[in-house]
This record gives sequence, structure tokens and C-alpha cells, in this order.
Amino acid sequence: MTENNLMEKIVSLCKRRGFIFPSSEIYGGLAAVYDYGPYGVELANNIKQTWWKQMVRLNDNIVGLDSAIFMQPKVWEASGHVAGFADPLVECKNCHARLRLDHLLEENGVAADEKMSEDQIGEIFEKNKNKIKCPVCGRGNFTGVKKFNLLVKSNLGNFASDWQKEPVYLRGETCQGIYVNYKNVLDSARVKIPFGIAQIGKSFRNEITARQFIFRTREFEQMEMQYFVSPGEEMKEYEKLKKARWQFYLSLGLREKNLTWHKHENLVFYAKAAYDIEYNFPFGFKELEGVHARGDYDLSQHAKFSGQDLSYADPQTKEKYVPHIIEASAGVGRTFLAVLTDAYEEEKIGQETRVVLKINRWLAPIKIAVFPLLKNKPELVKKAKQVYNQLKVDYLCEFDDNGNIGKRYRRQDEIGTPYCLTVDFETLADGQVTVRDRDTMKQTRVKVLDLDNFFRDKFV
Amino acid sequence: MTENNLMEKIVSLCKRRGFIFPSSEIYGGLAAVYDYGPYGVELANNIKQTWWKQMVRLNDNIVGLDSAIFMQPKVWEASGHVAGFADPLVECKNCHARLRLDHLLEENGVAADEKMSEDQIGEIFEKNKNKIKCPVCGRGNFTGVKKFNLLVKSNLGNFASDWQKEPVYLRGETCQGIYVNYKNVLDSARVKIPFGIAQIGKSFRNEITARQFIFRTREFEQMEMQYFVSPGEEMKEYEKLKKARWQFYLSLGLREKNLTWHKHENLVFYAKAAYDIEYNFPFGFKELEGVHARGDYDLSQHAKFSGQDLSYADPQTKEKYVPHIIEASAGVGRTFLAVLTDAYEEEKIGQETRVVLKINRWLAPIKIAVFPLLKNKPELVKKAKQVYNQLKVDYLCEFDDNGNIGKRYRRQDEIGTPYCLTVDFETLADGQVTVRDRDTMKQTRVKVLDLDNFFRDKFV
Repeated sequence: MTENNLMEKIVSLCKRRGFIFPSSEIYGGLAAVYDYGPYGVELANNIKQTWWKQMVRLNDNIVGLDSAIFMQPKVWEASGHVAGFADPLVECKNCHARLRLDHLLEENGVAADEKMSEDQIGEIFEKNKNKIKCPVCGRGNFTGVKKFNLLVKSNLGNFASDWQKEPVYLRGETCQGIYVNYKNVLDSARVKIPFGIAQIGKSFRNEITARQFIFRTREFEQMEMQYFVSPGEEMKEYEKLKKARWQFYLSLGLREKNLTWHKHENLVFYAKAAYDIEYNFPFGFKELEGVHARGDYDLSQHAKFSGQDLSYADPQTKEKYVPHIIEASAGVGRTFLAVLTDAYEEEKIGQETRVVLKINRWLAPIKIAVFPLLKNKPELVKKAKQVYNQLKVDYLCEFDDNGNIGKRYRRQDEIGTPYCLTVDFETLADGQVTVRDRDTMKQTRVKVLDLDNFFRDKFV
Repeated sequence: MTENNLMEKIVSLCKRRGFIFPSSEIYGGLAAVYDYGPYGVELANNIKQTWWKQMVRLNDNIVGLDSAIFMQPKVWEASGHVAGFADPLVECKNCHARLRLDHLLEENGVAADEKMSEDQIGEIFEKNKNKIKCPVCGRGNFTGVKKFNLLVKSNLGNFASDWQKEPVYLRGETCQGIYVNYKNVLDSARVKIPFGIAQIGKSFRNEITARQFIFRTREFEQMEMQYFVSPGEEMKEYEKLKKARWQFYLSLGLREKNLTWHKHENLVFYAKAAYDIEYNFPFGFKELEGVHARGDYDLSQHAKFSGQDLSYADPQTKEKYVPHIIEASAGVGRTFLAVLTDAYEEEKIGQETRVVLKINRWLAPIKIAVFPLLKNKPELVKKAKQVYNQLKVDYLCEFDDNGNIGKRYRRQDEIGTPYCLTVDFETLADGQVTVRDRDTMKQTRVKVLDLDNFFRDKFV
């Protein structure tokens, strides 16, 4: 399987089996925006709930938050996004396509990296200008490098006709919602430093060129945890956080050989350390999550711009300081794509190829599929419905009576369902059903009365 | 307790105890936008998960979806929102405040209803013009009635400088994302009519005046289920859906006397029936959920505007038709506020007043609080941590060693925690902890080894 081939297969499976659809597809789609279908929303929810459980439920000093997408525009001035959150772009003088510079270079086979500074990329562009072609029209005549701000603008709450002069931004990252609520959380929850605030929610960036399926989209969902620590503890806590975040991806079932740490070499002036966890996507190792030690920059900026005192008074030592922040910032879509990439397998079975998603059992969208052997035998259908109704109280199940059993198995394999149950004529006599395991394809007979017991520890 | 008083108390509790914070409060807030704090996000998640379980897991013919906030702008032309999704407003000629007409009338004690047609409201305004005062400056000189479109506009994916001429809208309702994915779901999931698509997600409306705390906000979250039926079955399925939706609110623990059906008298031309479930909020009976029979309007419009065939071919009868839709459309914030309103109680206990949220156990943000009797006795703290660590695997627990036990009980009462566990000196000898029940305040001794059993069926 070549790498591009694998990517195509995943995209095709996602569409065919209801994981991911292009947004408003019947209208020709909206670039760089995707919808999660019936199985996609379940897988994404399972990923989010696992993250939330590991962050919030299992840590007595991390609490949750769900701040709004919209905030006071000043938040984005304080954070530096209004002035500096921009990508360098050039415009093709022939077809007027606007192209993100590092992507344009990459597409022309010129080595570039999104982590390079703008000056570095600009210099490379100037040096290679004569051999670079526009990927849209094929010509090679470009404007100079401009910068385009990635914050998405809106007219929320602004009823004037010239509202674009005072836009209200959609958040470009969820963590700012955490920073501006730090004091509210401190005042209302039972937390003392060190403590963390965890949040899952959507963010928006006006990416100039969005590529690689759900890897880089203009609307995307983040899972972020910001950990507030005393200055002296920052690096110790950072190392602990790095370990925990690596462990999270292993717990999702990703193979360790497909994960790597990438160290940022060009740190912003306030940062103490910055590493990314990268995953071996079909298009290479790319960022899955950033784990960064940010010093006191975030709270200091918001204290300055809001005029509020955001310092912390240690109840024991009485020491007063602005907390330092270490963060773990992951993407739901990227994790989703990594899980699918890692789980996708093709197996030769005789003449046939079986496509199977060997996804962790408790991450699987559908936990158990229930089949009557034949759809035109009411007594089988009735019994199968009984079994389905018994199990659906605890697990997301699917009832399917369509086509032959082999086809139904293949369909469930493709969506990663760990167990298929078949009610056949013997069931009516001996009260047992056939339980078929997705990975081994082994079939065992289990009493209907024992099913609750059989599944009890299978999905935790 | 007067009604306004109750509302004030709920708003104050929400802020003080970390349920709801005004958005970006350190910057003076952003009107009509709120953030969910540590306990608020848990309660909201529990409401959403209950809805999802009842809709998706327990129904074999309803599947989930998570479509993006952004869609092709044409979607909103087809739906009629670009042309018609507008509120009548007037502007105060003195202070230039823009005021939603029905709210302005209401505030001036002139009977008006948001369900009135615009002509009706406009007429009432003209008749009463001389006695109506601006609530901002107190003068009484207004412009004529204008209309303001509620769709929020953005520059997502538009890199031109005059992008406001071709805005991309934030969705004004989640159901359009369901309609445009109807065909994709039909092609990828195992569904046959009748079937439903359920979705939870944010929507945005540029409300001119947003009031009543989280009841009407510009950014809000919906829980919507669209059910696709054959034309002849529409009204029968509608009656079934109405029953199920009523039941949902009872299952959340709302008192039936606080719920009522409101029948829409002015139906839009395509609608077959429209009822709202209203809840008795501190500010009166107001809409909690709309349950509407919409005919074939939605899919017909999208078929027309997209040029796609959205009809359904019945596999049995071979009959071909555009499915009719019945919908159940609820708000997370409104349900949240109803749950708090219904659960809020004040009880006299001797000289003291106990504030307690008598919320359903399985909806409660924190399920169990664990206390060591004294924080300066390491053996108690250690044992209490052990108990906490044992229980947190299954339930969201809170560890609290701050202040006297009575104060800790009061705090947990205010956030609705059903059970408090105290580890005292006897625990070290007999292995039992004191379990205190939120509602009865009764205390019982339970063996630590029996706790898993004790709690097993308490939160389902």
C-alpha cells in the first residue's frame, strides 16, 4: 500500500461508511470544512470522552470549562493574534489565486517547513522565484509576500452597516477562553496551584490553503488543558505533562513506532520549551499535539490589557506571583485521522480482501451488531430484536437484517465493530447466539442470558 | 420567594459556584454570551448525553451527526434565512439604541408576543407610539420599523478585502446541516424511512436585544432531531414524537406542573402543526422546545436550490416521494436553566438557610464528594485520598479538605452533589465511612469495601 493510496482509501471509507462527509456537499461543498456522519460523530465523541475522563475525572486538580466561541475583541489584542497571527501569502498575478507561501514552496519541491520564521521562508522564495509555478494555472508570476491574518471576523452583536470596521472574532484557539476565566475558576472552584483547566471546543482559522482532508481545516475542534504552576515548578511539571500526553495516545491504541517528539528550535521569546507529538500520517510525520511551557506570558498579557490583577497568592507561603502556564493542545480531527490511519488494515481471505478497522474496542462507534440470520423469518427477527433491546441500554448497538451474513460482517469490519451477534434457528432451541470477534474472526456460542456478563469488561 | 428574586439567586449561584460566567468578564464582558464553568460544563454535558442516549442509543432508527457550523451560503438562501430571518427593530432617534420591537413594547407594558406577525406588532407600535419610552435614554422618539437579519456574517475562506459583500454565514440553526446531509446518511448508514438524524451543536443569531441570562443568547447550543417520514405517516409520527419529547423533560426530573404545551396559531404555509413545550421559568412560561410537523418544505427547497434529487424510493412499495419532516428542536441553555430552576430550594434548618440543588442524581455535576474529617491529620487525608481514588474511576468525584464539615456540606448542597463521604478516626478502626444524603441529610455508615456496591445503581 503506497502512502497516497492509503490516504485515498481512508477518505473513501469515511465517505462510503458515514464517518466524514464534505460540508454541504449537495451544493458543491465548502472548502476545508467537513461534517462528521453517524459513525464519525460516535468515534469523535469517544475520543473526546476519553480525553475528558483522563484529564478531568482522573485528576483531582484539573477542572473542566466550556467557554464561548465569541469573546471581547480585546482578548485577541492581548494575545497578540490581531497583530501577529498571520501567514505569509503570495498572489499569482495571472489567475489571482492566493497561495500560502510555505505550501507553495513545498508543492514546487523546494524544502520549506511551517515552523520556519517568515524571513527564512521569504528568503527561500526570493532565491527560487524563477522556478516556482502556480499550482492553479501553471504560470510563474507572483506578487511580493503579504501577510494574511488568520482570525475569522464576524458581525456578532454589531448592528451597524459598517460593522466590518469593528469585527468580533471567532476564537482562533480555545486556550484564550481558559486564560480569561482563570480568575473566575480560582474564585469558584476548590483549586490551588498547581491546577489545570481543561476544555474541548471549536476554533476557527482562515487558513489560506487547507489540505490533507481533516488534518487542517478552517473549522476544527481542540482539546486543550492549561496547567497553572508556580514559576519554580514549571519545568518539573512540564516533564510530567509530556509523559502523560504520550501515554494518552498509546491508550488510544496508536502504535508507539508511529509517534515521535518534535522539538521546536525557534522558540518565541517568552517560551521555556516547546515539543510536539507527531504522528506518522499517510503524508508523513505531522503534529498531533503541542506540549508547551509558556512562562507567565499569557496571564501577564491579560493582566496588562484588562487592568485586572491576575496574580496568585500562595495560601501557605503567602508568596504572590503570576502563575506560569504549561499547556497540552490537541486536535480532535487529527486524533481521529491518526486513529483511523493506525487501525486501517487489509487482509487477504482466500480470494477476497477484508478491510477492517482494528480500532480499540471502547473507541469503536458501534460496539455490537445484532443480526437475525434471515430477515424473512419473523421468529428470528423477533428474537434478534429482543437481544438488541437488551444490549442497547448499555452499548451503542446496530440491528442489521440486510443481505447475507458475510456481507454484514464485512460492513461491520469496515466501521470497526468489535462484535457481531447472530440469531439463528439453533438460538430458538438452545438460547445461544453466535458471537463473532472482529479481529480473530473466531466465532463462539454464548447464552443470551450470559451476554451482559460476557460484555461487562470488554469496553472499559 | 418572588420570581425576580429567584432569578437573581440562580444567576448569583451560577457565578459564585462556577456554573456560568459572563463571557470575557475581565474585559467587561460580551453581551449575550456566556461561558460554562467547571460545574456548568458537567451539568450541560450530562444533559446532552442524556438526550443523545434517549435519541440515538435507544432508537434503532435514529443516527447521530455533527455537521460543521459553516456551510455553503446557498444553504441559507434555500432555507429562506437570507431573505426572511429578520426581527423588526426601531432605533431611538436620541441615543441611537437599536431595540427589538416586541421587547420594546413588552418593556413599556404594552401587550405583545414574539409569536405575533410583524404586521400585528407594527400596528400595535403605531397605536401606542406616544407612550413608549426608550429603555436606554428614556426619550420617546423612534425611527420607523426596520428589519434586521439575524444571520451572523463572517469572512471564512474569503481572502478579498471587500469580503463583506459575499459573507459566509454562521449557522442560525443546526437542522439545515441535517437536511443537506440527508442523502449522505441515506447512502452510508443502514436506514430506511421512517428514520431520524440527531445532532447537538452550536448556532448563532444576531439577537437585537438578548435578555434573561442564558435563555436567549447570541451563541447557543441546540439539540435537534429531524425525523424523515412518508407523507401519509406524518401526523401519526408527530403525535408519537410529542409524547416522547414531553417524557424527556420528566425524565430530567422537571415537575410536570411546570411544563405546558403551547400551540402555534399562525402557522407558516407549509407547516402541518407546531407545538412548543414551555417551562415555567422565573420570568414565566417560555419555550423550551419546538415540536413541529414541517411537510416536505425543507427537502423540496434544498432539492430546488441544489439541483439534486432528494426524493426517496420506498424499497417495498417502490413509491417515490420527497420525505416529510417532523422535528424536535431543544436548547441546551434553556434546558440547563429549567433544571436549575426546578432544583433550586431553600430550606430552613434551625437559624440557618440551606440552599440545595435537588437535581437528579445522574445529572449532578459532582456525584460524590470525599472529605477527610480534618486536613491536618495525615492518616485521615491518606485514607480519604484512597477512597477518592477508588471512586473516581467510575464517577466524577471531588476531594475537599477545606473548612469544617458543615461548610463543606453546604457547598456540595449548592452544587447538587448527591452524596458526601467523610473519613473520620473511626474509619481507621472499622473501615466504614459516613455517607450523607443530600436530600434527606441522613447519615449512614458504609464499609469502604461496599462502596462500589452501594453506588452501583445510584446514578443510572
